[in-house]
Amino acid sequence: MADLNVADLHGSLTDRALNSMNFLNEVANHYPDAISLAAGRPYEEFYALEDLHGYLDTFGQYLREELGYDEAGVRRTIFQYGRTKGIIHPLIARNLVADEGITVDPDAVVVTVGCQEAMVLVLRALRAAPADVLLAVSPAYVGITGAARLVDLPVLPVAGGNGGVDLDDLVAVVKRARAEGLRPRACYVMPDFANPSGLSLDLETRQRLLALAASEDLLLLEDNPYGLFPAAGVERLPTLKALDTERRVIYLGSFAKTALPGARVGYVVADQTVASPDGSEGLLADELSKIKSMLTVNTSAVAQAIIGGKLLQNDCSLVAASTRERKIYAENLQAITDGLAARFPAGEVSWTVPSGGFFVVVTVPFLVDDALLEKSAHEYGVLWTPMHHFYDGDAPIHALRLSCSSVTPAQIEVGLDRLAALIKDHL
Amino acid sequence: MADLNVADLHGSLTDRALNSMNFLNEVANHYPDAISLAAGRPYEEFYALEDLHGYLDTFGQYLREELGYDEAGVRRTIFQYGRTKGIIHPLIARNLVADEGITVDPDAVVVTVGCQEAMVLVLRALRAAPADVLLAVSPAYVGITGAARLVDLPVLPVAGGNGGVDLDDLVAVVKRARAEGLRPRACYVMPDFANPSGLSLDLETRQRLLALAASEDLLLLEDNPYGLFPAAGVERLPTLKALDTERRVIYLGSFAKTALPGARVGYVVADQTVASPDGSEGLLADELSKIKSMLTVNTSAVAQAIIGGKLLQNDCSLVAASTRERKIYAENLQAITDGLAARFPAGEVSWTVPSGGFFVVVTVPFLVDDALLEKSAHEYGVLWTPMHHFYDGDAPIHALRLSCSSVTPAQIEVGLDRLAALIKDHL
Repeated sequence: MADLNVADLHGSLTDRALNSMNFLNEVANHYPDAISLAAGRPYEEFYALEDLHGYLDTFGQYLREELGYDEAGVRRTIFQYGRTKGIIHPLIARNLVADEGITVDPDAVVVTVGCQEAMVLVLRALRAAPADVLLAVSPAYVGITGAARLVDLPVLPVAGGNGGVDLDDLVAVVKRARAEGLRPRACYVMPDFANPSGLSLDLETRQRLLALAASEDLLLLEDNPYGLFPAAGVERLPTLKALDTERRVIYLGSFAKTALPGARVGYVVADQTVASPDGSEGLLADELSKIKSMLTVNTSAVAQAIIGGKLLQNDCSLVAASTRERKIYAENLQAITDGLAARFPAGEVSWTVPSGGFFVVVTVPFLVDDALLEKSAHEYGVLWTPMHHFYDGDAPIHALRLSCSSVTPAQIEVGLDRLAALIKDHL
Repeated sequence: MADLNVADLHGSLTDRALNSMNFLNEVANHYPDAISLAAGRPYEEFYALEDLHGYLDTFGQYLREELGYDEAGVRRTIFQYGRTKGIIHPLIARNLVADEGITVDPDAVVVTVGCQEAMVLVLRALRAAPADVLLAVSPAYVGITGAARLVDLPVLPVAGGNGGVDLDDLVAVVKRARAEGLRPRACYVMPDFANPSGLSLDLETRQRLLALAASEDLLLLEDNPYGLFPAAGVERLPTLKALDTERRVIYLGSFAKTALPGARVGYVVADQTVASPDGSEGLLADELSKIKSMLTVNTSAVAQAIIGGKLLQNDCSLVAASTRERKIYAENLQAITDGLAARFPAGEVSWTVPSGGFFVVVTVPFLVDDALLEKSAHEYGVLWTPMHHFYDGDAPIHALRLSCSSVTPAQIEVGLDRLAALIKDHL
């Protein structure tokens, strides 16, 4: 007899959201020789071990020369326990000015163990009572759904439509939820080159979304892992946070795609004011910091030093630092959409043509389930992601996601040939 | 008007547990020149920046030579997203054999963002319903109480007594809880040189506690951050996990005190079997891994490489690696208890004489509250920790905790002089 039964453990453990990631990883591990148009990991050819040494040294130099630390102070900062909200917040604030035109008080920044911890901190803070719910533009990144499950926060889907978010549906969902006695706390949205849809909000939609957040008294959780990667010839648009004049936006940042995932450093900008019973007022960032102190104590100082060093070596601009990667992503994205056009001229299959990011969604006239993925991996040697993993319900989904981020143009061609064979065999 | 009200945020944010740490840090930051007999941080004089480079290189070499990775594989392992359960699990398993005589399947190890995340993973998994409760030996490390708050898990105190845990009280608490319809899931205990009590369980108590866990069908959460630091002449005892033949013990490990806190690497050994509804059986570690995938995705590979490198450079023994620190802690502990004896010969004040670890508890014949700490910092120039922070209730506590870990013998003498002046002024 087993020591424990999963039925006696937290409900999230049998939830689809927490098992999706596991299943997809398992398929990938089981078919290591398949071409992966599934993995959203960043391009890795430019990583170099000696850079880590350089980043650490650069950060040490910054502590010495810019902050005036003595050697004991430098060692203490990198080796010891440290500030819960992190130690690279001034560099993140500079990065936000340089790359996003966002001006924030560094004290409103909480450095986190990747963007995932940032989501958990925010959702944990906002989930105060069983009536609280989160809205999320659908299809949604599975990490936000999973984070919500961990804090027992239901997620209500908002239609993404063709423009990245259907604002009429957003209002309808809010009104329906309130009529049912629920309290919508925030709406999660990825306005730039979203995962998985690839869609982006145009400027007018951004402004209308902000106005709506104000009129409906909602917070917006803006997640922006892909914003630096526009397609060729596409102008980047201002983030919601850059347009936010009323502190409606909690901004979730990631260095996984712009620096390196192995540091596991992300952050949240939470400049909202919070009133305490004693009449004092603080920042939401400080409330998140209290939660963080009991979740991970603080983000690894060594990992922060790596990211801090990379920022410092590039005048805090990751646009400048990722010139090579940006070119590769734009070319690969083009190669995927061109490759699909060449292989499917007839119209039985359709796909998105994103203005940037890593992902193309392909819609086919048959069900795309996990069994089909396994078959694709086993018989055709190509991996992709069934889109149903990004929807909360059980509705059958006829679409799959392709990623362009960690493959070569040659692999894209072979991968698309194999995918085309699979699709043609199922038409 | 503020954007948000703390009353609309999660209840943990107004809870004492989450505010204790903040308050204590604030006092410490406000009086940087006070001698700190409060901080439990490790001794830092032996930290050297160049060691970080060495650790990274050693880990890279291990990947190449022992695991046979090519250069691309080495870079991928350190820079990319990685295995949710971590990449240094085989080295942790070797460390447990070398330093603790514990043999575990490396697959039962989840590498975490410090021991704090390990606690959250375990408590999140175990808290399935509102009737679930955690038992914790009192006084308890505030991190376990805080972690429990984050997952809405009530904590029932079990008396620590003079032997580290009062087993009769443990049984009584379990029975009372069950009679009230509650479901005790586990009991948290630090058997070796506990924070804050300094107490250790003797061998017989360890064996009786394990037998009791079996007869009462409880899990034991064994936290062992200080086990490597016995007082001079003290023999280390086997951990509960080393004595555990029935997988009753979930073992929480930390590298903060034995390697460095700045990596934020800890781990949990969860070798319990878990039955799924489909009849399959897995490891609790794999359930914790699912939660981790939505909390922090994985522990920083760079941080793991630092700890892995340090382990490899010391044949995976941190006993061997911390010879200098172990001597300092033992001498400092002795200096504190000797210093107290020299200053308080008359018996108005009493203190523990721990067999190891960082902490001495001093009991005085007056209330020790936060106001007294502020006065001590401001007027006497010495910091310590009011023991009430480690109790869950509101009962007045007449004791304070002294830490020996990050001070010199000279600072201990001055600090104790100042503490003695404070105490004598209040007698």
